[in-house]
Amino acid sequence: METVPGIDDIRAAHDRIRDRIHRTPVITCGTIDGLCGYRIFLKCENLQGVGAFKLRGATNAILSLSDEQAVSGVCTHSSGNHAQALARAARDRGIPAWIVMPTNSPRVKRLAVEGYGATIISCEPTLAARESTAAAVMEEHGATFVHPYNDPAVIAGQGTTAVELHEQVDDLDAVIAPIGGGGLMSGTCIAMRSLSPSTRLIGVEPLGADDAARSLSQGVLVPQESPNTICDGLRTSLGDLTWSILRDHLEAIITVEDQSVIEAMRLLWERAKIVVEPSGATPLAAVMSPDCPLPKGSRIGLVLTGGNVDLDQLPWS
Amino acid sequence: METVPGIDDIRAAHDRIRDRIHRTPVITCGTIDGLCGYRIFLKCENLQGVGAFKLRGATNAILSLSDEQAVSGVCTHSSGNHAQALARAARDRGIPAWIVMPTNSPRVKRLAVEGYGATIISCEPTLAARESTAAAVMEEHGATFVHPYNDPAVIAGQGTTAVELHEQVDDLDAVIAPIGGGGLMSGTCIAMRSLSPSTRLIGVEPLGADDAARSLSQGVLVPQESPNTICDGLRTSLGDLTWSILRDHLEAIITVEDQSVIEAMRLLWERAKIVVEPSGATPLAAVMSPDCPLPKGSRIGLVLTGGNVDLDQLPWS
Repeated sequence: METVPGIDDIRAAHDRIRDRIHRTPVITCGTIDGLCGYRIFLKCENLQGVGAFKLRGATNAILSLSDEQAVSGVCTHSSGNHAQALARAARDRGIPAWIVMPTNSPRVKRLAVEGYGATIISCEPTLAARESTAAAVMEEHGATFVHPYNDPAVIAGQGTTAVELHEQVDDLDAVIAPIGGGGLMSGTCIAMRSLSPSTRLIGVEPLGADDAARSLSQGVLVPQESPNTICDGLRTSLGDLTWSILRDHLEAIITVEDQSVIEAMRLLWERAKIVVEPSGATPLAAVMSPDCPLPKGSRIGLVLTGGNVDLDQLPWS
Repeated sequence: METVPGIDDIRAAHDRIRDRIHRTPVITCGTIDGLCGYRIFLKCENLQGVGAFKLRGATNAILSLSDEQAVSGVCTHSSGNHAQALARAARDRGIPAWIVMPTNSPRVKRLAVEGYGATIISCEPTLAARESTAAAVMEEHGATFVHPYNDPAVIAGQGTTAVELHEQVDDLDAVIAPIGGGGLMSGTCIAMRSLSPSTRLIGVEPLGADDAARSLSQGVLVPQESPNTICDGLRTSLGDLTWSILRDHLEAIITVEDQSVIEAMRLLWERAKIVVEPSGATPLAAVMSPDCPLPKGSRIGLVLTGGNVDLDQLPWS
């Protein structure tokens, strides 16, 4: 297993990527505070470049490559925000990127990746096909594989979100972030444990992809099979590295139903005036849930992870 | 005519309202820059309290009242963002507000005003009925009338948007803001002329409500009759005070068609990930227009004025 990154790695990542990412704003909304009974601070990674926090980790991974590694490019398999993030970060360093995408990926996502100048390699929509196709690309081009979450450099990059949140908001009682593969929450745990040890660390998952919650309750890594949720960014399983970090640091995971995610998403659009994708709205659904263990009045940072939504297919229309 | 406010009035307004408004973020978006050929800075007043810059002027007007005036409350006639802003600002000072709204106002707008604790007085949907009803409220309660734009305290409050933008972004070549009644653009002109005299000042209007453009070209105040535009915040005519300020300071007004406003609005939602109403998207439509007189590469601040949109009635669905 790879090494767990520390706060120094996250700080180094921040210095490395600072000029290539947005320091995203933290937004507050009196109406939302009134509805949930907390003081909520929305860390807007939906306003990050490529519309998701994924740009942080991908940029750190690519800027951490030696010149010799970099010249041969990078590859990954993903149909989601990591694909766009890696393509964009590769373009910014001026190196090639090969993105393995299943043939059933939405056209809009393929266009976005191509728009950043990456080469798409199509494959059958199975994990085996994705992995073997990526292996072939690495073999042929000598490209470095950048995993979407189970990678210390990626985790350190995602942890910079929490460093900024800590700088932007004093005295957070808790931070809540979504868990898909666990890269963001892992980086958040490492950063906050060092910067603000008393801040409580809580994850959120959709009920239809609650592998981290089940892993935590069983004490062993349980992979996600047949995820069933509108939260397309949260359908993946934890990796061994992210699991080891979450297991050691996370206090709890709140699970939320898709309907409450859609309501939280609409609330963010209507009242906070920001475009947030379903995965990104899960932390608000968590604090609206009766299962939220935090006392009313708590100061809570919510990481809104992304804003990549098809405006012609909104879940309430 | 009322006195034209100066930069000192705007600075005093900012000190007065600072703790009751959001210092809204400035967002940049590489995709939008690439599409229009400028370096664009989006001043996000859609993220302001009540979802619009109107909270600034209304709050300054209400905090400028003496205690004796304040106790008798305020009133206005409006079915738009000013109504919500005045209701909210009155609630924050703990004084009554009477909002005269035509009987055909959308239910969602009435609910928002009531949500802030104001009293709605319904009237026939004519200007005469609105004015006589407001006069009766003032007579009965001794309430102070707060005009949505033709008021020095309101203009000074709106000017605080430009003060922040100037603090947030260096070396702006131009600022572009929408013109409805002209309060925001008037405050912007006064602030920028003092803080950054070389920054060019450009307004934008929808073609179907271009009274300020026609006034500027004819050199006299031309009222808007029968406006026809999707930009519901920009259908009003200039007032004598705002006209006198715009006439003296404004370099040009770009007029834009509704279709280009809808495209700009969608671009902001899709790429900048923020919810902006049609009126608020007009500055982006202006810089996408072939009529924009600014040289490519210019650093341009765009004031995105509001984000109050019915999510069930989006113009592209």
